[in-house]
Amino acid sequence: MTQFPEAGDALRAGAILTVDLDAIVANWRYLDKRVGPGARAAGVVKGDAYGLGAARVAAALADAGCRRFFVATPDEGLALGALLSGRSDRVADIIVLSGPFDGSEADFAGAGLIPVLNSLEQISRWRSLAGRLDRPLPSVIHVDTGMSRLGLRYAEAESLSEDADTLAACAPVLVMSHLACADDPDHPMNRRQLAAFQAARRLFPGLPGSLAASSGIFLGPDWHADWCRPGAALYGLRPQQGKANPMRPVIRLDARIVQVRDIDAGETVGYGATHRASRRGRLATVAVGYADGLFRSLGNRGWGHLGEHRVPLVGRVSMDLTVFDVTGLPDGLARPGDMITLVGPDSGADDLGEAGGTIGYEILTALGRRYHRVYLDGASS
Amino acid sequence: MTQFPEAGDALRAGAILTVDLDAIVANWRYLDKRVGPGARAAGVVKGDAYGLGAARVAAALADAGCRRFFVATPDEGLALGALLSGRSDRVADIIVLSGPFDGSEADFAGAGLIPVLNSLEQISRWRSLAGRLDRPLPSVIHVDTGMSRLGLRYAEAESLSEDADTLAACAPVLVMSHLACADDPDHPMNRRQLAAFQAARRLFPGLPGSLAASSGIFLGPDWHADWCRPGAALYGLRPQQGKANPMRPVIRLDARIVQVRDIDAGETVGYGATHRASRRGRLATVAVGYADGLFRSLGNRGWGHLGEHRVPLVGRVSMDLTVFDVTGLPDGLARPGDMITLVGPDSGADDLGEAGGTIGYEILTALGRRYHRVYLDGASS
Repeated sequence: MTQFPEAGDALRAGAILTVDLDAIVANWRYLDKRVGPGARAAGVVKGDAYGLGAARVAAALADAGCRRFFVATPDEGLALGALLSGRSDRVADIIVLSGPFDGSEADFAGAGLIPVLNSLEQISRWRSLAGRLDRPLPSVIHVDTGMSRLGLRYAEAESLSEDADTLAACAPVLVMSHLACADDPDHPMNRRQLAAFQAARRLFPGLPGSLAASSGIFLGPDWHADWCRPGAALYGLRPQQGKANPMRPVIRLDARIVQVRDIDAGETVGYGATHRASRRGRLATVAVGYADGLFRSLGNRGWGHLGEHRVPLVGRVSMDLTVFDVTGLPDGLARPGDMITLVGPDSGADDLGEAGGTIGYEILTALGRRYHRVYLDGASS
Repeated sequence: MTQFPEAGDALRAGAILTVDLDAIVANWRYLDKRVGPGARAAGVVKGDAYGLGAARVAAALADAGCRRFFVATPDEGLALGALLSGRSDRVADIIVLSGPFDGSEADFAGAGLIPVLNSLEQISRWRSLAGRLDRPLPSVIHVDTGMSRLGLRYAEAESLSEDADTLAACAPVLVMSHLACADDPDHPMNRRQLAAFQAARRLFPGLPGSLAASSGIFLGPDWHADWCRPGAALYGLRPQQGKANPMRPVIRLDARIVQVRDIDAGETVGYGATHRASRRGRLATVAVGYADGLFRSLGNRGWGHLGEHRVPLVGRVSMDLTVFDVTGLPDGLARPGDMITLVGPDSGADDLGEAGGTIGYEILTALGRRYHRVYLDGASS
């Protein structure tokens, strides 16, 4: 088992979150190679790199040669731009998926961010700014092929493709779309969206394309186009339902035992008294709760590991505390100060998500701010 | 409707979270008066003040006269201690519910924090530190009466009560316990825990007691003891199931519309294509998703408000985006840049929690970091 540096503020946090930057880099290299040489892999670091810390993750990926990043919002783009602009080797694009919100266009252009233009309205505002600045402003054109969320309809893309002045001003570097059901390889949406994307690309001859995110990469080369946009797979999540996960695990979450106590048959645990002990037993309470992103939906359904022993989560998850049943464990295994592993080699974020009725993605983005965070990289491993 | 200052970074965030500090102060005063004059209300600001920002909330409560704060972890205690120590009028206790983790005792004593001592093991460590420092160190004694989470068993409390040296070293200022089912006034646990708490108090004659948190306050004066510990009710959450909520609402969450689009009958929305339009309609996509704490469990179950119009959430919640059905709304009501209210006067955090299969508490603690936050206080209202 990994040994953690237990000093200073690590002693005051209820849990330790370890993020393996080497594994993230290895996952990016694996995907970049898998989609090459015809396509390249960008790095998706939106949502603070899926909760793992965009500053550390993007720096590691840039060091490894990642030259294109995707974020969600203008704020995220500006923060990443500030981070990367301090590097002597800055040659990475930062693409902002939401596009510019009305009024934030000048911030984009000032920071050299590339917006995804999702609607005729965003295109019109971006074109206006290019006119005021009297220079073309790079952008990405988003054509919707079945998410009904953001992006142009085909007819809108068609009219854009015939508008040479707007195209010159908005200087597209990429045409993109997004798959709705790529985690299920047999879903008919995948081929339907691919066909719609290919039709949209024919409107913009010569323009590079991007369709696949993590799951889409595993649908096969037809979906790869020129740029793939892995996020989840970088962070070790399983790209496809019901298949083995080829990605290296990235996170480990160890929760500190505050107290170990006996419980008598008939006594209840936690809010609402939803767990009742059927016999005399032993409980360990850890200093992690739903305020740390350990979802309440895991109450009476989750588990942790103490060494190789799986220990069930009993009762409801409280805001700051969670209780595990450690009855029958060998003496000395569950003591105050010991750690119960919530995410680790025996149980990943995908498994925790499934137990809580959600997906590993949401487990990651909910990771709390009270954890002491340890980043593993080449220097430390 | 409240007008928001839409400038600077507010234009770059996907949503605006407004926290009404005046309402929090008013709620604290209401509760302090309700439990008085026999008891006083502390301020529970753990979990970053239930996601609302402990620095701002604790400062406002201290200004209003709150003289005792509860936090969850040593880190939270140190942060609050640093904040309050800068005030000329610092007379507030900071009590840390988890107690000191092994190795963090000296940090507690150095910052003047008061730990809750939950186990004989924590008591022993605290006593040792008092011995090394050669002075009594204030603490709170926690007796478990039915949560089976933290706290001494009755027999342990009894042996502590007979140990004059340890009591002198650990200098208790309060004996506390915690109710498991207080949100349900008819639950038999409430009277049972009250009786157990009264028995524990008899072990420590003259020592002030604390049993009730927000919901417990509404069980009546028998449960008030000397100090009540409201958290949820300060932040406007409903203290009791199925009863009217006497608290002032505290938060408002407005999500920015990025795009408005038409949808044809038969087209699907979002990941997994879980929503299919039964007729031609209109969708609005906002820049908030589960990475902002809008739970995936709200997919096809949540709603928002545009003015007085309730608009259903359709499809799955994505990481950074959520789609609402705005079909049939008056022209000009749903335009890019307009705001859909997710939490506001027509729909509180409790309602959103219920729709997502959880409780308002978890809605608050999950509130995201990407929101632009506006604090309303006397100066601004």
